[in-house]
Amino acid sequence: AHPVFAELPETVFEAMSRLARQHSAINLGQGFPDGQGPDDVRAAAARALESVSNQYPPMMGLPSLRSAIAAHYWHHQGLDLDPEREVMVTSGATEALAGALMALVRPGDEVVLFEPMYDAYLPLVRRTGGVPRFVTLQPPHFRIEAAALAEVFSERTRVVLLNNPLNPSATVFGSDDLGLLAGFCRRFDAVAVCDEVWEHVIFDERRHLPLMALPGMRERTVKIGSAGKIFSLTGWKVGFVMAAQPLMRVLSRAHQFLTFTTPPNLQEAVAYGLSKDDAYFEGMRADLARSRDRLAAGLSRIGFTVLPSAGTYFLTVDVAGLADDDVTFCERIVREHGVAAIPVSAFYAQGNVRHLVRFCFAKTDATLDAAVERLAELFRAG
Amino acid sequence: AHPVFAELPETVFEAMSRLARQHSAINLGQGFPDGQGPDDVRAAAARALESVSNQYPPMMGLPSLRSAIAAHYWHHQGLDLDPEREVMVTSGATEALAGALMALVRPGDEVVLFEPMYDAYLPLVRRTGGVPRFVTLQPPHFRIEAAALAEVFSERTRVVLLNNPLNPSATVFGSDDLGLLAGFCRRFDAVAVCDEVWEHVIFDERRHLPLMALPGMRERTVKIGSAGKIFSLTGWKVGFVMAAQPLMRVLSRAHQFLTFTTPPNLQEAVAYGLSKDDAYFEGMRADLARSRDRLAAGLSRIGFTVLPSAGTYFLTVDVAGLADDDVTFCERIVREHGVAAIPVSAFYAQGNVRHLVRFCFAKTDATLDAAVERLAELFRAG
Ligand SMILES: CSCCC(=O)C(=O)O
Ligand SMILES: CSCCC(=O)C(=O)O
Repeated sequence: AHPVFAELPETVFEAMSRLARQHSAINLGQGFPDGQGPDDVRAAAARALESVSNQYPPMMGLPSLRSAIAAHYWHHQGLDLDPEREVMVTSGATEALAGALMALVRPGDEVVLFEPMYDAYLPLVRRTGGVPRFVTLQPPHFRIEAAALAEVFSERTRVVLLNNPLNPSATVFGSDDLGLLAGFCRRFDAVAVCDEVWEHVIFDERRHLPLMALPGMRERTVKIGSAGKIFSLTGWKVGFVMAAQPLMRVLSRAHQFLTFTTPPNLQEAVAYGLSKDDAYFEGMRADLARSRDRLAAGLSRIGFTVLPSAGTYFLTVDVAGLADDDVTFCERIVREHGVAAIPVSAFYAQGNVRHLVRFCFAKTDATLDAAVERLAELFRAG
Repeated sequence: AHPVFAELPETVFEAMSRLARQHSAINLGQGFPDGQGPDDVRAAAARALESVSNQYPPMMGLPSLRSAIAAHYWHHQGLDLDPEREVMVTSGATEALAGALMALVRPGDEVVLFEPMYDAYLPLVRRTGGVPRFVTLQPPHFRIEAAALAEVFSERTRVVLLNNPLNPSATVFGSDDLGLLAGFCRRFDAVAVCDEVWEHVIFDERRHLPLMALPGMRERTVKIGSAGKIFSLTGWKVGFVMAAQPLMRVLSRAHQFLTFTTPPNLQEAVAYGLSKDDAYFEGMRADLARSRDRLAAGLSRIGFTVLPSAGTYFLTVDVAGLADDDVTFCERIVREHGVAAIPVSAFYAQGNVRHLVRFCFAKTDATLDAAVERLAELFRAG
């Protein structure tokens, strides 16, 4: 047997970004925004290089950031978190996720995964020795159904891992989907790891409902957030984990041996940023919703079938009539048309969905328009 | 069975730093220097918040940093590394180590560990399902002996994990110890993971010999380095991994799912720092050697038996006549005398060494003198 990771390909996001560079393509693949994030948050990071210590901060995170995180989630989501015992800072949401799985899953434990899923989930579960049980969500609505949960939950279920809002399908799960899931978690005494990195990026007056807020879930949910996503600073790699203390104790043991801490100047700047007023978050959402609408309109106009996008940086198109499958399509458009996108089959372990392609719309109007212009050739040619 | 991490205590470094804060003690426990690192490196980090992208950098690290790392190790250690294929940037050496073990060790594989060892090693090995085989190094010389290696190496050995220079004993392994080890690695086809984070912190005209430079080891060594240690910026969490390409391919798969990337502005600043001239590194070593000598002299003068320190930020004293064991001694001095230190038994899995205590000397003269002054009471009282 080879080690788990030896068998894996490079992550699709990295591979596509490299192809984009090689072909001087417009990169609507990997999910990162144009621009440099808020000026004042970057300035806070520069100041903090002088005003806070550059030596090891506390392993759980700077007290200033943990307080800011607790205050932030109280204000935005009504969660009552003890900053000393229920909040931890990690080196990005990826570390938070890896640590949660390493902390909670023993070899042989079952882990419920929903596909489409982020490409890190399955290899991390396998590396813990966990046994994946898949729930396949079907386009175009990607809803969670009781029958599907009943098939995979059992006494052996240790963890269920959900991404809400869901990348890549841009689905926002509400009280119906989440209520069903919470019921199964309670009944089978499972821990929910809820990757909510897109929690602030939801559109059209929707409100994010944290899984942790559902009845009986406060004690059994690990909530994961991301400053990189909140502030459009994806390179900063400052993540958060929120959980009740008995869970947090175990999560912190994994964290202390995975990265131990996170750069203090970036932590301090994120603490500053989290206290921004509602107008900032509403403005961000409104800007992104406009970008979503602009790209959706452009892609529809030239001939694509565009699926709805309720949140995240992404929208998805159906390429069924345009190529044999999504991978072929993405390879063609990056090479021949100079636009990079992500094939949605990369998010399915069981591979029955091969006709969807994801575009990132967190870009300037000029970038989006240029991409649409380039893709228009596809339809002119055909 | 509980998950591996649920059984663990908080890391001794964090626990001692908290005790130090609670008792307003001088903290000579956790290994971090006084001060804020080099002004120009911090200034470079501030500039880079504007001059480089704050979005995801390449998963392997910024090209500028990977080139700087390769040039640095060529200049300082004669290693010929391909920056594109043999160098990877991680979110600290801890992530590098966790990733290497996750990438290389399958359940049931044997992993050779040398104690005293850093407290992350054993839990990480257990979490991979690896089976630890211990070589116990004995004070006061902590040398590697052929007989001890012969007892633990076998066809089942997959990885050997060595820290050189060795924390906490401040031992620098040379061609005799390393040659023995390399022989066993070759004979049993084992991969050496060599945690060389203290490579620049060696004294008295010693030169660091990278394990990778030994015959037959280029293809089977994973070398780990740390910008935090090189630049006295322990909070920055910028680490490096060097390995031949077939190994690196697998290591990068683990990295992409543990943290994925590392903040680009800090990477750029480290690239700047690594090109500092020899005078910088010699100056750092000379300053630290003076601090070592000052603390050693002070502790000897008041009555301690001080063991030799050939590198790292640390020196060790023998407390055999002063307390029942090292833990009791450390609890007493932090509470009653206001000085925090680390009990060396925390570095032994098998616990036969219980009379050594580690002090960090990477502090200002005033801090070191004040600590000695406080500890002098121990001998006056007795
Ligand atoms: C870590 S790179 C991937 C970023 C992202 O969230 C996405 O593109 O889906
Ligand atoms: C990660 S805190 C420990 C720092 C260190 O290297 C030590 O004190 O040994």
